Parts: sequence; C-alpha cells; structure tokens
Amino acid sequence: MTDLSVDNITQHAITINSQCPDPRTRYLLERLTTHLHDFARETRLSTAEWSQAINFLTETGKTCTEVRQEFILLSDILGLSALVDSIDHPKPPGATQGTVLGPFHTHDAATLEAGAKLSYDEAGEELFVLCTVHDTQGRALAETRVDVWETDSSGRYDVQYSERVKPDGRGVMHTDAQGAFWFKAIKPVSYPIPVDGTVGKLLALMGRHSWRPAHMHFMLAREGYDTLITSLYPRGDKYETSDAVFGVKSSLVVDYGAVDEEMAKKYHVPVGTALLVYDFVLASEQEARELQDRNSLDALKKLGRNFKIVNGLPVPEVD
Amino acid sequence: MTDLSVDNITQHAITINSQCPDPRTRYLLERLTTHLHDFARETRLSTAEWSQAINFLTETGKTCTEVRQEFILLSDILGLSALVDSIDHPKPPGATQGTVLGPFHTHDAATLEAGAKLSYDEAGEELFVLCTVHDTQGRALAETRVDVWETDSSGRYDVQYSERVKPDGRGVMHTDAQGAFWFKAIKPVSYPIPVDGTVGKLLALMGRHSWRPAHMHFMLAREGYDTLITSLYPRGDKYETSDAVFGVKSSLVVDYGAVDEEMAKKYHVPVGTALLVYDFVLASEQEARELQDRNSLDALKKLGRNFKIVNGLPVPEVD
Repeated sequence: MTDLSVDNITQHAITINSQCPDPRTRYLLERLTTHLHDFARETRLSTAEWSQAINFLTETGKTCTEVRQEFILLSDILGLSALVDSIDHPKPPGATQGTVLGPFHTHDAATLEAGAKLSYDEAGEELFVLCTVHDTQGRALAETRVDVWETDSSGRYDVQYSERVKPDGRGVMHTDAQGAFWFKAIKPVSYPIPVDGTVGKLLALMGRHSWRPAHMHFMLAREGYDTLITSLYPRGDKYETSDAVFGVKSSLVVDYGAVDEEMAKKYHVPVGTALLVYDFVLASEQEARELQDRNSLDALKKLGRNFKIVNGLPVPEVD
Repeated sequence: MTDLSVDNITQHAITINSQCPDPRTRYLLERLTTHLHDFARETRLSTAEWSQAINFLTETGKTCTEVRQEFILLSDILGLSALVDSIDHPKPPGATQGTVLGPFHTHDAATLEAGAKLSYDEAGEELFVLCTVHDTQGRALAETRVDVWETDSSGRYDVQYSERVKPDGRGVMHTDAQGAFWFKAIKPVSYPIPVDGTVGKLLALMGRHSWRPAHMHFMLAREGYDTLITSLYPRGDKYETSDAVFGVKSSLVVDYGAVDEEMAKKYHVPVGTALLVYDFVLASEQEARELQDRNSLDALKKLGRNFKIVNGLPVPEVD
C-alpha cells in the first residue's frame, strides 16, 4: 500500500495502528485518527494553518510548569474537561451534579476542625458555610472527607502567589454523625483564568472573555461512593451564563441566606453573616458505574458497532 | 444556558465560539470542537485517559527545541502531515506527486554548480543523479530552484550531529536551459525517526516500528508554479510499504540504473556508477489552485452545507 491519497490514508493509518496489542488503546487510536483526518478533510486544512497549530501546541507545552498546566486550561476553554467529567462521572437522579476540577486543587490543605476558618483574607466578605452530605436514599454520610478551596477576595488562589509559604483559602474536613460540616469562609468572587499564555491568545482570537463566575470548589470522598468533584456558584454573577470553562450547572447555583439567632448561637457566628447552605448527595460507586456502563452502551449503539465493557471502558467487539 | 450535559455542551461551545470575528477561524473552531467532543463521546474517554493525554502533550512540548520538532513528528506518524500536504498541494494528472517535507530541511545549504558533490560522506555508496523538470505541457523549466537533502550513509542528517559546523548532504542548484540538473550524491539509506521522545513511546505503545525507507528529498520552486515538495524512494527497501510517516507513493519509487560510457564522458563520472534518473513535472500555480478549489467544494458538498472559497480556503456560506 504505497498510493496514499486524501481519501485512503485514514484507513491505511488505522490498519497500521491496529498492530497495537491493547484493544482499548487500539480503539482510541482508531477514533483519534478518524477525527483528526476528518477535521483536516472537512476544513481543507492548509499547510500554513497546520504549521500555526504545531507552533501553538509547542508554545502551550513550553508554558506548562510545575504550578501551571496550560493544556488543561486549553481543554477547559474548549469544553472538553467538562464533557469528560460528565462522561466519566455521570450522576443518577437526585445525586449532586459534578463539574470541572480546575487546575488549582492542591494536596497540602490543612485539616480543619468543625467551624474553623478556611480563609484568612481579611479583605474578604465573611461567609458561613453549612452543608450536609447524604446518599441517594437520603441516609446521612458521616465521616465523608470534604476538600474545599476558593480564591481570596482579589480572585486569586494561594498557589498563584509566588511568595506562598502555606495554604490559604483551602482546607480538608470530615462530616459529623449527621453528615454535616461547616466552616468560615469568604464570599467567592469572579476571576479571569490566566491569559498571559497561548490560551489567552486563543480566547482573544475567538472574541471570548476569560472570566469564571464566582464559585467555591468541593471534593467529597467516601469509601463505596463515587468521589464528587463539584462547585457551588452564588446566583447573579455576571459570568453565570458564559463561564470561560463551561463549569456552571443550574443545580449548582445557590442563593445566599443570612445567619439567624439560633444558628449564631449554635455555631458562634455573628447574626446576619452571609450564609451558604447546601445538601450534597453522593452516588454510590455501584450506581455510578452501572450508569456509566449503561450510558456508554446506549451512546455507542449509535455508531452501529457492537461494544463490550472492559475495565469500565468500551472496546469494539471483534466479530 | 447553564445546564450543560454530555449531549448539549458541543452546541453550546460552538455558539460561544461563534463570537469569533474571522469566518475561517470560526469554521476551524466549529469543526475542532465537534471532532474533539465526538472523540470523547465515542470513546467514553475517562478522566484518567484524558489526564494521560494532557501529560503526553505537555511532555511533547517540552521535547521540542530549536532543532527538534516533536509535534511535527507526532503529526507525521499519525498520517496528518501527509494528508495536509495532499489537500494543500493537489497535483493535476501528469504532475509529480508531493510528499511530506519532514523536519530536516534547512535554509543554509550551499548553492552547487552543475555536477557538484552534494555529500562528502566517503562511507556512502556513490550515486549520480540526473533529472529534468517540465511543466504539464511538457515544456522544459529552466532556472528552476532545486533544493535537495539526504542523510549520510549511517542514516543521519547533518543537523542531527551536535558538532555540525557546516551543511553536508544538502545543496541548492538551478536547472539549465533544457530543464536539467545533475549532481553527485550517495545512495540514501533507511533510518529510524527519533524515538527518544514521546513519539517513540507512542510508536512502542502502538506496536509500530519507527523506520523510514531510504529516500532523497527534493523541493522544486519556480515563479508561476506550485512549489513541489517531494522525495524519491529507491525500490525494494524493506520499509517501502510501512513508512513510519506515510510518505511513500508508488509514482515516487524509482529504480537505479548505471552510468554508461557516453554519460560518463559527458558528466565526468565513472562508468558503472549507480544512477538515479527522474523527470519532475510541476503544476502551475493556476492549475494547483483551481484543482484545490474544485477538490474543496467537491469534498464539502458531502457535509450538506454551502461553502464559498475565501483566500483559497473554504468557509460556510451564511444563509
């Protein structure tokens, strides 16, 4: 086979790649080759444009450092991160929706006692957060590990300061016997994603802004349950419907309340403090896995091929 | 629009990206988003796989240097480079086929007199190259600029030696009044593409070898003609049908001859020296452009949308 043309090169590449011994990787390669080639054929991609893309990817790689991941940012603004999260972590009815992890989660957050301060930014507007965690049957989930992170009042995460000496605006806590956890934070604010790299240039080219609406990140983990990575978005942010990274879901948009007298007494918080209340509902691992498999097989039926699930991921059946 | 799901996020991303003021870029973004998202949906891409891809791209970027372009290599082994070349430089009947440029062309090759030495590698097997250049009407093309490059006898280009002080195995010459050019080279040999980077790891994962069949690169440029980037492949190489970068076309596979007495006398080459003879046929710029536009519109008809050609590239007609 040496007469490669615009029309037959894709099948030829797939045939050569079918030497790959792992069936899942082989399937990924087949779909990657097909879509990459179809993209070039459907756009009649020019050598000059291809060359610009090569340079863009190279520069994106050069922008990545230990504390900055420009390719994740690229995936975020193309909607790919949100999509992969939805595919890999589907939520059964009643379970809290997930959303993008983002690049600012760390593993060095301090463990907080119930009611402790998460943010030490004195310029921030005080916010009391009082949440519960349940399963889809309504049972309280005690001892759930809750990892929370938010920006400071200027819209920056602690890791974005080169002089950072210790974590701030983040903490790990555990739910009590009633599945509850509470802490003192500040109201999150909207902020732009970093625009001094290739992703910023691309957004400018697209005519898009770089802002994310205000949000607070949560990661909830408990044995036997599908880890929930999500965020809560206070209602009314001007970027609520145009999040640069496609993270908002209406079920995650929340209204602030205010701490009343009873609550003030119980949690030692001033009356009138802004209040964020939310009940997180976790899907069990089994619920999530069954839903994921069912979604996979349903979606793949459309491709007109037979699939089986191997290690939780689809591969085509060989006839 | 804040209830993004696996099924509606693509349309939402395309809508947001349609703020892009340039219609060609807007079309590229639309097709990129569609294929990227379809790839994730059809493979049910997992977060772990997505993360591996992010790391792969990052490492690929880090591998790129002034003298090494790992993303081009990646495009090459996926068949994308050959495809884009075929789309952007279609050849009318009778014109010589093009093939991949590869990453080893430089702009510092010496200008050679007719009959000069291209390679100073004494370990190489001598080869006399005698070619002509015509247009599709059979007219000789005098004063065509011919840029030639090949590896040494160990399968390496001069730029792959860190101690390189001047070009070797490459040269620029011009055709004479009869459209002819000739020079002294060495027989090209097969060689592996660099495998110490991410592309090497990917090839190993694919179960593919990294070899290119022996070839000599040619770039032919003349005003009014579509620049021809091509290679000639001596027949019988063991990698002829499995070129790692999909560069071989049967019309570019050639048989060696031997220098006869008359030729020996005329060109001052020993009788019996291996001989490579080829007639390159260049498409005019107009022929290439018309063919490209026609191919574009034919191919895009299949998408069921109306397109117009702007600056040689298709963009959808807005109703």
